Amino acid sequence: MYAPQQERIERLQKSLRQQKIDGLLVSQPDNRRYLSGYTAPDHGIQETAGYLLIPASGNPILLTDSRFTLQAEAEAPLYTVETYTKGMLQAVETLCHSLEVQTLAFESEYFLYSTFQKLEKMAASRELTLKATSNLIEQFRAIKDPQELELLRRSQALNEKVFQAVYQTIEPGMTEREIALALELTMGEMGAEGPSFETIVAFGTNAAKPHAVPTDRVLEPGDLVLIDMGLILNGYCSDMTRTFVAGKPDQTFIERHRVVRQAMLAGIGAIRAGVTGVEVDRAARQVLNDAGYGDAFGHGLGHGVGIAVHEDPRLSPRGTNTLETGMVVTVEPGLYLADWGGIRLENMVIVQEDGAEVINTDTTSLDL
Amino acid sequence: MYAPQQERIERLQKSLRQQKIDGLLVSQPDNRRYLSGYTAPDHGIQETAGYLLIPASGNPILLTDSRFTLQAEAEAPLYTVETYTKGMLQAVETLCHSLEVQTLAFESEYFLYSTFQKLEKMAASRELTLKATSNLIEQFRAIKDPQELELLRRSQALNEKVFQAVYQTIEPGMTEREIALALELTMGEMGAEGPSFETIVAFGTNAAKPHAVPTDRVLEPGDLVLIDMGLILNGYCSDMTRTFVAGKPDQTFIERHRVVRQAMLAGIGAIRAGVTGVEVDRAARQVLNDAGYGDAFGHGLGHGVGIAVHEDPRLSPRGTNTLETGMVVTVEPGLYLADWGGIRLENMVIVQEDGAEVINTDTTSLDL
Repeated sequence: MYAPQQERIERLQKSLRQQKIDGLLVSQPDNRRYLSGYTAPDHGIQETAGYLLIPASGNPILLTDSRFTLQAEAEAPLYTVETYTKGMLQAVETLCHSLEVQTLAFESEYFLYSTFQKLEKMAASRELTLKATSNLIEQFRAIKDPQELELLRRSQALNEKVFQAVYQTIEPGMTEREIALALELTMGEMGAEGPSFETIVAFGTNAAKPHAVPTDRVLEPGDLVLIDMGLILNGYCSDMTRTFVAGKPDQTFIERHRVVRQAMLAGIGAIRAGVTGVEVDRAARQVLNDAGYGDAFGHGLGHGVGIAVHEDPRLSPRGTNTLETGMVVTVEPGLYLADWGGIRLENMVIVQEDGAEVINTDTTSLDL
Repeated sequence: MYAPQQERIERLQKSLRQQKIDGLLVSQPDNRRYLSGYTAPDHGIQETAGYLLIPASGNPILLTDSRFTLQAEAEAPLYTVETYTKGMLQAVETLCHSLEVQTLAFESEYFLYSTFQKLEKMAASRELTLKATSNLIEQFRAIKDPQELELLRRSQALNEKVFQAVYQTIEPGMTEREIALALELTMGEMGAEGPSFETIVAFGTNAAKPHAVPTDRVLEPGDLVLIDMGLILNGYCSDMTRTFVAGKPDQTFIERHRVVRQAMLAGIGAIRAGVTGVEVDRAARQVLNDAGYGDAFGHGLGHGVGIAVHEDPRLSPRGTNTLETGMVVTVEPGLYLADWGGIRLENMVIVQEDGAEVINTDTTSLDL
């Protein structure tokens, strides 16, 4: 059985001791799942399914309310589950006292200012020192172990299978919404837990919005079709984009598609352990710049994928990450022209010592 | 055409002037949509689709990045759309300068501590005063105008229609997941934008978890079935729960179901403008207490529903809300017994001057 939580907790506890932190409150749902196995999602940041309290040494605690007690106990056997009835903060106060926590850290990137205000008040009355951490568990999550890599390969393989099944059925007369629904349905039928984000299906000029939401627009012969889709399988996400034409592509589409494809290949070609996200982004962006589409590519080149569909590292002009072996990233250049439409291509790759392993095998439209 | 944003902005601006706030940064996605019509969702709080900057008087501004510019311009015609390329904070800094904002407020309940840290740094260098607001726009949202009430009625009517369509097909041999998928599919086919939360389908002891996630458990004759479902139609949510038995219910189920139904009726009976959420919760809880199930009901009685499926007001032992005419709330008592299962019943009601209008018409299992 694959139960990596013990090792993850120990690695984190070592880091806490080095930083002189006595306890860390984990609020970020993906971090919570990563460290505990507890899968309950937050319904928005204001409706938490619980917190972990990880002491610098000793047994970790999972704090939740009565809606989730049974699930937490079943899914997180390494944790002592504490059910709070008077709010999380009161439970944390009691635990900090009994565990002799003097420096309590919290995750600044998934902690509401309003919760901080309450924590601050409690800390003042208890002479507790608060410490805001940044990107602590995310750093560990960015580097996948071999089992995680296999789960990501399977997730993307299923994603491609779903894409192919629906791609074969696409024809003029269908709407963006219908195709998106068919994709999400097929994901479910083929065993996915669900989509990893809202499926994007955009025809023609609608594809000029990188984050288009499917509409009732009807597919006409000759329209370009952009599909950006991902699913969750065994807790791990996939993400892929293809752009093609309903019918025969014209010369403009073919040329622009080639530029985006060259940009993708240049990005993938630049990937290996030790290079920065900025450098990889630049390699792909240069291709678009050289072809005169620099202004038509407004977003970053890619992002890490794992338990979350968007996680570290980032490939972008403003990124701060250096790639390491075992990271998994998307490479997704695009060009977006309001009066014409958009093209984006996206594959997922594993960063290796001296290059990149492309996870995708689907070649739809890539051979244009 | 129903375009209520102008009035909403003016009402908010009046409140800002009263509080001596020169500008409010709106980060909460439902508040953003409520005030602007801009529908892009956040993919988690860390991936914002933009902010509104509402000055105490004058034209409001929508800040977003290039992925969303076209959508923002199309959906929010009352707003000046500013596309930021170097991050939201830099754009806010420039705008505060040009608009002569000296006191800038932000929404403490949807503002990350890490973003606050950056804002604080910027404010210090600009001699800007920051002010954390709480529940400012949510207060306005809690009271629905007549058009919103109609949208909520339609959303719940469709939700009931979807429930009935699938309910007719339920039979032993089906799994929780299959039924949940069928429900969500039918929502899409019948025109919903999507589910308003992850559909809950739980058989037998699985129903002892109030927030059960559908599993591959197979329905056996005599199992109880709890379905908690909602959808989004025209941006407005619905939410309903029914619990029934596959086949003939035994006496225990019938008795417990009656208790929960009596609790629901008691809750609904207590609703009118002027009573508190605590009082309504107590009226329902008393019925469960009297029947010996006080400990089996661990969650609050209900919540507001609107653009968000969970919003103000709250009906709970620890709530602080007083009901007002035009509020819309769920009434959803339940009892949960780990070794047996759970029963929850949930209707949505509109608070009126002297009572409650029950939106639901579905009587499945309610006449047991």
